[in-house]
Amino acid sequence: MNEHAFWPPPPRTIMTPGPVEADPRVLRAMSYPILGQFDPAFTAMMNELMGMLRRLFRTSNRQAYPVDGTSRAGLEAVLAGVIEPGDRVLVPICGRFGHLLHEIAERYGAEVTVIEREWGTAFDPEEIIRAIRRHRPKVVALVHGETSTGRLQPLDGIGAACREYDALLVVDAVATIGGVPVNTDDWQLDAVVGGTQKCLSVPSGMAPLTYNARVERLLAGRRRIERGLRSAGEGTSARPYIRSNYLDLCQLQDYWGPERLNHHTEMTAMLYGLYEGVRIVLEEGLEARFRRHRMHERALTAGLAAMGLRLFGDPSCKLPVVTCVNIPEGIDGESVRSMLLDAFGIEIAGSFGPLKGRIWRIGTMGYSCNMRNVLLTLGALEAALLRHGMRVPAGQAVQAAMDVYAEEQAVQTG
Amino acid sequence: MNEHAFWPPPPRTIMTPGPVEADPRVLRAMSYPILGQFDPAFTAMMNELMGMLRRLFRTSNRQAYPVDGTSRAGLEAVLAGVIEPGDRVLVPICGRFGHLLHEIAERYGAEVTVIEREWGTAFDPEEIIRAIRRHRPKVVALVHGETSTGRLQPLDGIGAACREYDALLVVDAVATIGGVPVNTDDWQLDAVVGGTQKCLSVPSGMAPLTYNARVERLLAGRRRIERGLRSAGEGTSARPYIRSNYLDLCQLQDYWGPERLNHHTEMTAMLYGLYEGVRIVLEEGLEARFRRHRMHERALTAGLAAMGLRLFGDPSCKLPVVTCVNIPEGIDGESVRSMLLDAFGIEIAGSFGPLKGRIWRIGTMGYSCNMRNVLLTLGALEAALLRHGMRVPAGQAVQAAMDVYAEEQAVQTG
Repeated sequence: MNEHAFWPPPPRTIMTPGPVEADPRVLRAMSYPILGQFDPAFTAMMNELMGMLRRLFRTSNRQAYPVDGTSRAGLEAVLAGVIEPGDRVLVPICGRFGHLLHEIAERYGAEVTVIEREWGTAFDPEEIIRAIRRHRPKVVALVHGETSTGRLQPLDGIGAACREYDALLVVDAVATIGGVPVNTDDWQLDAVVGGTQKCLSVPSGMAPLTYNARVERLLAGRRRIERGLRSAGEGTSARPYIRSNYLDLCQLQDYWGPERLNHHTEMTAMLYGLYEGVRIVLEEGLEARFRRHRMHERALTAGLAAMGLRLFGDPSCKLPVVTCVNIPEGIDGESVRSMLLDAFGIEIAGSFGPLKGRIWRIGTMGYSCNMRNVLLTLGALEAALLRHGMRVPAGQAVQAAMDVYAEEQAVQTG
Repeated sequence: MNEHAFWPPPPRTIMTPGPVEADPRVLRAMSYPILGQFDPAFTAMMNELMGMLRRLFRTSNRQAYPVDGTSRAGLEAVLAGVIEPGDRVLVPICGRFGHLLHEIAERYGAEVTVIEREWGTAFDPEEIIRAIRRHRPKVVALVHGETSTGRLQPLDGIGAACREYDALLVVDAVATIGGVPVNTDDWQLDAVVGGTQKCLSVPSGMAPLTYNARVERLLAGRRRIERGLRSAGEGTSARPYIRSNYLDLCQLQDYWGPERLNHHTEMTAMLYGLYEGVRIVLEEGLEARFRRHRMHERALTAGLAAMGLRLFGDPSCKLPVVTCVNIPEGIDGESVRSMLLDAFGIEIAGSFGPLKGRIWRIGTMGYSCNMRNVLLTLGALEAALLRHGMRVPAGQAVQAAMDVYAEEQAVQTG
C-alpha cells in the first residue's frame, strides 16, 4: 500500500465494538502541548481526573485512576495485584474475553476454576453464586460486556455473595463503561476495569480502573518501593511482591496518590484525551448517555430486521452497545465487510473462535453511536448485500430506522 | 488549583530530560481520526513504521516495533522475554535507571549480579567485560544514557564479549535514541529499547524496540498462543512461558507480524504520533540530528560556565542531551526551579537518590533542543539566581551562548 493511501489516515465510519471514532474534542485535546509529569498543572489535572472517574464508575473508592496501557493492561494490573501464586480464582466464561481473564490469572500463578456456557448466552447470577459456594475462590473474575458475543452479564447478587464467602469480585467493564450502567458501589464490585476506545470514545491506550478498600488492604501487604527510590529496609513486605513492575498497582497508587513516587512517565497526550473524554460523558450525563445508546440500538435492530437479517444470541442478555447479526446462508461475510470498508469507508466487525465467519458484530458505542452512522451503515449494508446477490427489500432498512427516530423524537417533544 | 489553571494546559518551555515538548506536527498527527486496528490502511502504517524503526535503530533486525506502554514497559517486555526464573543477569549500575533494570530482572526471577560505580561516572567497557568473564551471565542489561546523572555509557566491545561468552546484551536507549548514535548492529546489541518522550519528541506512551535473531530464537521456545485463540495443543511450548500477557514479546511479534494474531487494541493516536515523530527524525537525518544536539549542548554549557556554574560529573562521559549542574552553595534548588516554572513557564529537573537537592538537570532533547529554548532558559536561570541573591555576572550567559551560535553559523556558511 502506497503511503498516500494511509497517511494521513483516510476517513472512516467505525461501527465495530471498538476502537470506535473519537469525539473531535478528544482528538483536539490530544494535540495540546506537553506538560511535565510533576508540573503542578499536570498533577492538578490528574487529581481532577480521579474525581471524574469516581463519578463515571459510580463509586466513592479512593482509588480511581488509569493504567497506562490498553484495556488488557488494566485487567492484568488488577489480577496481578490480587492474585498470589496458588490462589484459587473462579472465571465464568461464555466468550473470548472470559478466556483472556483465565489466561491472565493462570499466568500469575492462580489455580483457575472455569465454568463455561455456550457463546451467545450469559450466566444466571445464581449459577455463579453456586460456583462460588462450591469452589470458595479468593477471586472471582468476570466479563460484564462480552463483545465477542454481544452479551451483557447480569451482576445482581454476585457482589454480595463474594462478600459472604470472602472473595474479591473483579469485573471487566471495558465494553460497558460509559455506555451501560456500571454501578460499582451498589453492586459491591471490588475492582472494575474500563476501556477507553469503546463507549468513552477516546483512542486506545489507557485503562481507567477503580478498586475499593478490600483490595487496598490486600495490596498493602505486597507493597514494595522500587530499588533506587527506597532507603535500606524501607518499603518491602513479607508477602510475595507483584511480579510486574510496570503494572504494579501498589506503585501506581503511590504515583497517583499524594506520595507522587516516581514510576513511569505519565502518558501526557493520552491523559489529555481521557480527561476530555470523561468530561464529555459527565456533561452528557450517565443516564442520558445510556438512553442514547438504547435508542440507537433500537433504530439499528429495526433496520436489520427490516432487511430480513436475524440477530445472534440470547436476546434476554443482549449487550445494548453491540449487535450481533447472523451472516445469511450463502453470503461470504468477509467479502461483505471488505465492500463496506473499501466502497463506503464503513467498518463493521467479524468475530472469534466458534463464531468466526458466522456473525457480524455492529457496535453503537460512544461518539460512533449516532443517527448518521446508523443510517449510513444500514444503507451501505443493504447495498453490499444486494451486490452479493441477496434478495433484500430495498430501501426498507433505512426507513425502519428513521421510523424509530421519528417515534423517539415524538416522545421527547411530548 | 482551579480547572482554568490547567485546562487547556498552559504553555511551557520544557528543558528537562523528558518528557520534552513534542513537535507540532506530531501533536497534529495525534489528532487524526481513528482507524480500526485491522483496517488495511492501519496495518500498512504499522508495516511502514517497522521499516522506519529499523533505520532509527540502525539495524536489519526483523523485529522492530513499539510496545504499547511507557519506556519501562518496553524494558520490562524485553527482560520478561529473555529471563527465565533462575537465570543469571549482570547489571552495571551508576544511576537510578540501572537500579530499575535490577528491579525488573529480579521481579522476573533472575539471580542478579550488580556491579556499581559512583553516580556521575560511567564504566570503562573493560570493567564490564571482566565482570562478564567472571560471572558468565545469560543476560547483561545496561543503561546507555543514564539521565539521572547525565552520563553516556560507552558500549564498544561489550557486544562482542557477550557473543564470546554466550550472553545477550539488552540496552536501555530510552534517553539516547534519536539524539545520540545508537548503532544496534555495529555494536552487536541483542535488544535495544528506546523512549518516545525524549529525543524523539513524541508524547510518552510507547516504547519502540528492536531485537535480533538470537533473542528471537530464545523467545521461540517460550511461545504460547492465548487461550480463546489457540486450538487444542497448538501454540504452547515446554519451556516456562512469559509471566505477563500484556508484555509478552512472543504475542506482540505475532500481532505485529504477518500472523496479525489479535492481542491488545493498538494505540491508534500514539501510533500516529510515533509514526510522524520518527518520520521527522529520518527527514532531518540521524547524523544531522546528532550534530544539532551537540551544538545546543555547547551553547548551553558555554552559557552556564559564563554564569559561574559548575557542571556535575565526569566530563569524559557526559551525555550530550542532558547537562547536570551543581546547585551552588547556599541556593535552594527547588525554589529556583519553582521560580523558573511559575514566572517564566520554563521547566528544568532535579534528580534522585544521592543527587537529590545537589544538582539540576537541563535537557536539550529533540524538539526542545533549539536556540530559542536554550537562550530563554539561560536568561531566566540568570534572573532566578539573581533573585535568590547569587552574584551572577548579569547578561553574560546569554551572550556566551549567542557567541557559540554565531561561531557555528560562521562554520556552516563557510
